[in-house]
Amino acid sequence: MFRNEMPRFEILSEGALETVERGWRRLVSEIGIQFDHPRALDLFRAAGCEVEDARVRFDPDFLLEQAAKAPREFDMRARNPEFDLHIGGDSMIFAPTQGPPFVRMGGVRRDATLADLQRFIMLTQTFPELDTPGGGICEPNDTALDSRHLAMNMSLILLCDKVFEGVPMSQVAAADSVRMGEIVFGGRDAIEQRPVMFANVNVNSPLRYDVRMLEAMLEFSVANQAVIVTPFLLMGAMAPVSVPAALVQQTVEVLAGVALAQLVRPGTPCVMGSFLSSTDMQSGSPAFGGPESAVGLYASGQVARRLGLPWRSGGGTLTASQSVDYQAGYESFNTLIAAFLAGTNVCWQSAGWLEGGLVTSFEKFAADCEILDLLQRQFAPLEVDEASLAFDAHVEVGQGGHFFGAQHTLERFRECFWRPTVASTENFERWKKNGSLDHAARASRRWRELLEQYERPPLDEAVEEELVEFVERRAAEVGDTISVR
Amino acid sequence: MFRNEMPRFEILSEGALETVERGWRRLVSEIGIQFDHPRALDLFRAAGCEVEDARVRFDPDFLLEQAAKAPREFDMRARNPEFDLHIGGDSMIFAPTQGPPFVRMGGVRRDATLADLQRFIMLTQTFPELDTPGGGICEPNDTALDSRHLAMNMSLILLCDKVFEGVPMSQVAAADSVRMGEIVFGGRDAIEQRPVMFANVNVNSPLRYDVRMLEAMLEFSVANQAVIVTPFLLMGAMAPVSVPAALVQQTVEVLAGVALAQLVRPGTPCVMGSFLSSTDMQSGSPAFGGPESAVGLYASGQVARRLGLPWRSGGGTLTASQSVDYQAGYESFNTLIAAFLAGTNVCWQSAGWLEGGLVTSFEKFAADCEILDLLQRQFAPLEVDEASLAFDAHVEVGQGGHFFGAQHTLERFRECFWRPTVASTENFERWKKNGSLDHAARASRRWRELLEQYERPPLDEAVEEELVEFVERRAAEVGDTISVR
Repeated sequence: MFRNEMPRFEILSEGALETVERGWRRLVSEIGIQFDHPRALDLFRAAGCEVEDARVRFDPDFLLEQAAKAPREFDMRARNPEFDLHIGGDSMIFAPTQGPPFVRMGGVRRDATLADLQRFIMLTQTFPELDTPGGGICEPNDTALDSRHLAMNMSLILLCDKVFEGVPMSQVAAADSVRMGEIVFGGRDAIEQRPVMFANVNVNSPLRYDVRMLEAMLEFSVANQAVIVTPFLLMGAMAPVSVPAALVQQTVEVLAGVALAQLVRPGTPCVMGSFLSSTDMQSGSPAFGGPESAVGLYASGQVARRLGLPWRSGGGTLTASQSVDYQAGYESFNTLIAAFLAGTNVCWQSAGWLEGGLVTSFEKFAADCEILDLLQRQFAPLEVDEASLAFDAHVEVGQGGHFFGAQHTLERFRECFWRPTVASTENFERWKKNGSLDHAARASRRWRELLEQYERPPLDEAVEEELVEFVERRAAEVGDTISVR
Repeated sequence: MFRNEMPRFEILSEGALETVERGWRRLVSEIGIQFDHPRALDLFRAAGCEVEDARVRFDPDFLLEQAAKAPREFDMRARNPEFDLHIGGDSMIFAPTQGPPFVRMGGVRRDATLADLQRFIMLTQTFPELDTPGGGICEPNDTALDSRHLAMNMSLILLCDKVFEGVPMSQVAAADSVRMGEIVFGGRDAIEQRPVMFANVNVNSPLRYDVRMLEAMLEFSVANQAVIVTPFLLMGAMAPVSVPAALVQQTVEVLAGVALAQLVRPGTPCVMGSFLSSTDMQSGSPAFGGPESAVGLYASGQVARRLGLPWRSGGGTLTASQSVDYQAGYESFNTLIAAFLAGTNVCWQSAGWLEGGLVTSFEKFAADCEILDLLQRQFAPLEVDEASLAFDAHVEVGQGGHFFGAQHTLERFRECFWRPTVASTENFERWKKNGSLDHAARASRRWRELLEQYERPPLDEAVEEELVEFVERRAAEVGDTISVR
């Protein structure tokens, strides 16, 4: 697990942070948030909030009090203890893209299937840069809707022993996810003691939580799982066309969600989510990797630290590009390095994202894992001591020589520099001889190699049997049959 | 001209900076630098330095005293006053790639010609992101060697009215460059009063200045032009395989060069150059855009500010990639954003660089100018005031609505977000209908459009006549004929 011990890039002055705070205090107390769920409204009413129809107006200090009940940092348990996670502080964890209905493999773009999802889960297991598959790396469109969450969870649990994400699409999906966590980790007490799954809840921005998300959130909160509350803000569509306004709205939406989780169960581990980008105002299409989203990330990190909550960034390796090209490279890199600079704790959408999140690309998955690896090296502190100055190498080489054969070099050449896995430094003649492959073509080789290296992690037979029984029974109850082996 | 008013990303502690300082003090006093030029050695000897054969060992404090004579910030005069430059402080200026022997246009890679250089100069005139063409954006291989500098300078002066770079390849080239500056700007006094050209001098690292570079440097210094002293350090080849060691070596090489310029003419404007990257230790090829060069840039900025010198970064948009692909996108972006984060003043190699600097690419020129534009927007301070919070937009839109038609949006939609010039946010169907063009293909359109928009800037007829006469006479003196109109 990576620890980001580099400085944070902070662009907001104390005065600017105070202006943002005045902004969210006003927005939450004067406009408030809509919750489409009677139980949520009951909980807020019982806590003394002002509820009018489905709208809740908040005392800002009440929200801060609730948020203070969430832990600043917490631990999560994986099937393989080597992959246990620490959330918050200096730690940064990485998940691939979540949610796309399509996949791209080489030149072919098509509907995603369960087999694709399983390939991506296997790649997540194999790529060391990734700490969790999250949940739906792509949408398994060929599975029945009512039992889809069972097929997804089963794949996540059987094929990968990293922390996974429960399915937050409905109360039923959430409850089944929690139950499967109980089966794997030894019962309710065990998972309540230390969370074993993420639950990412998207707000229906602006300022609204819909019933499905709320049902799932209540289910995960009561089981003490890690709730990520994520406003999904494309400025110009779900938020005003101003980064400060989006920051204010994001803060309001997060605090209201976190407060609800704390009312359900004080101490529920919560993560401030963010997904802040802009809209191309000519086409209405979402834009990614531009200056507004980077600036939004820098600033969001400061807001999260001020609130004392671990922080999930949306991005990751976001891009609007349709192919794995120069645009995909720079937009993805800009979003990802912004997450590092801003001190993200949970970095969602970090591998595979293409076409504004409509596509998970196999090639981009491998390409993005390379820049994840690069930035993990880049954000390791530079050790500066006498030995690092290599005075003896200068004594040996002198003026006008070269360091290829110096003792200092020979002792370090294997480890001294980061090594790419896809990028090429070949000279032109060799590159041409080897087929003039661009980065996307080389990335295609890379993910295929990694998939071949995949080994299914061991799972206790009795646990697997119990999971299979559970999943088959639940599928039958909703009228589906499911094949899970 | 861009001013970078964002915070600097500083990764070295005070203690680390002191260790680096101890390192360069030791290196310069115990190992010293080789100068292959009698006049340079005479100057150092006269100043009391320890000269043994061609090697000079320095008192570190002497070097700091000399460096303190160089201005911390200075102004430069362009043919068009709109393009005058301020060097140092918060200001950042951008030049395209310098030096490649090859060009790439679409799928064709070939020897560069004078016509290519002229196209790139015209593009530099047209792209507003670029402040100076520098000098040899590519090598005009089809011109005679002895008069090449005349052809280059003539193209730079006639086709572009931004500050240019004199040719530093020899004493003759430097003297002719200075003379042409005198013709354009009204005589020796005028150019001595305010420099009109850059002179980039590469050190023959490690720890050596060769005769050609020294001759050129002496010529430019005596004329008070802006001397950039640039160690060219590929760690593993010209420097030890350690970033701190490279920083120490870079500091030593810069200070020695700056001291020489100050001995020639106290107060000569000098810029600390840097070009720090690593070698692929398997192939021996240079690598670009990786973590070591980014970390080297962050740290170099801190060293430059400690020395009180304006700072030129090598990169820019560096990449080892052979084509305008994902690798080119992320490597270029990593180097360029590092320059912004580190507070570069003079950003060389910012457009067109491909194949480790062997190729200037027309497509990458346009692609790189887009990310230059992006980062200039990203590094503009975020204004956070009451108006920016857009409270009224929330009053208008309420919960669950959208902001497309909000008054706040309608008033701002044209200017609220950065707009790309090459990148695409088209949805898949439209993108496919429009030919499924990747970023490189779209960049090809972009530079052709900009070249069509080019207009030759006006030049006083008498000045042009005098330049032509000078160039024709000088070419004849070296036995060449030259066509300059």
